[in-house]
Amino acid sequence: MDFETNSFLSPRLRGMVLFFLAIAITLTALTTSANGAQKKGEGPMFTREGELLMPKNFRHWVFIGAPVTPNDMNNGKAAFPEFHHVYINPVSFAAYRKSGKLPDGTILVKELASVGAKSAVSGNGYFPGEFIGVATAVKDSKRFAKEPGNWAYFSFMGTDGKALAKAKMQPTPACNECHQKNAAADWVFSQFYPVLRAAK
Amino acid sequence: MDFETNSFLSPRLRGMVLFFLAIAITLTALTTSANGAQKKGEGPMFTREGELLMPKNFRHWVFIGAPVTPNDMNNGKAAFPEFHHVYINPVSFAAYRKSGKLPDGTILVKELASVGAKSAVSGNGYFPGEFIGVATAVKDSKRFAKEPGNWAYFSFMGTDGKALAKAKMQPTPACNECHQKNAAADWVFSQFYPVLRAAK
Repeated sequence: MDFETNSFLSPRLRGMVLFFLAIAITLTALTTSANGAQKKGEGPMFTREGELLMPKNFRHWVFIGAPVTPNDMNNGKAAFPEFHHVYINPVSFAAYRKSGKLPDGTILVKELASVGAKSAVSGNGYFPGEFIGVATAVKDSKRFAKEPGNWAYFSFMGTDGKALAKAKMQPTPACNECHQKNAAADWVFSQFYPVLRAAK
Repeated sequence: MDFETNSFLSPRLRGMVLFFLAIAITLTALTTSANGAQKKGEGPMFTREGELLMPKNFRHWVFIGAPVTPNDMNNGKAAFPEFHHVYINPVSFAAYRKSGKLPDGTILVKELASVGAKSAVSGNGYFPGEFIGVATAVKDSKRFAKEPGNWAYFSFMGTDGKALAKAKMQPTPACNECHQKNAAADWVFSQFYPVLRAAK
């Protein structure tokens, strides 16, 4: 019964120990891998040249609002004649719920859906049609140290109408200036994103 | 070295085995609990009396579309004068992606957001305001065996304007009939939910 008098682990005991060790290692590996993958896929990812990769799985992120500014309400010349489905990456949303501030690594995705039907059994209105493009905003105080508010803007809509796999930062005047002047706070139009407001 | 000749586990070996066993059990419990909680919180939950509990965390579910049928496009008398933020529970969405069919346990949440602003720097349009209510649809071939399509509908809007914690099924003619007649498929208005269409 005294360990010192038993030479080393018997084969059966060694087997049992290895068995539980293997279970523990496997479970740890699975857990770590799942968390790691989620965090990796959730944040903005850049090429070496600083181009933003098209975010994956953003339709599983947190939806925050869907304004629509259709052509027929803007003399046929709407700047953004689509529904905007706006999402935020979940880790940044969680941080925002705690602190009320959007952290570095925040990525907002704006998926564009055309105006589809304008009437249905539920009444006249605007109903989303088909997806036509993706644009994003990324906050990073190091990577975008020179951008106002540390926000940079990207469009994944290619000139041929096809989606781009990666995108260069838009020139500052193209998006940042308007966000800086008109967004409710921190370059984000949270006045139109009830989920973001409710989370604060 | 032969197990038969060693009486029983030495205290130290017993300790090691128990240690790894504890790790294995803890990790298994954590993993099961995480999955279990996710599945439990994700699906419809009913009281003993058959009332549906207000779903939790649905703003973390999969958003599928946000039509709007405002009063000023319906002679001031819109049946649904709000934005509808429509979500589906993730396990049912995953099943739908695989099979193209919504499984038993599907719950669609319709969160109502008032029309807020009608113009912004981006143009004239409709911008979501504040949240004003929640309604849901649940599919269950056993629990709702008698309902057309096995769909039942619930409103969590109390008569005093406050949200209800639980809700009784709406009478069949109140919702089910219109969904049956006018929805694109399976009682669901997927013609207005581009995320659902894209997933199929």
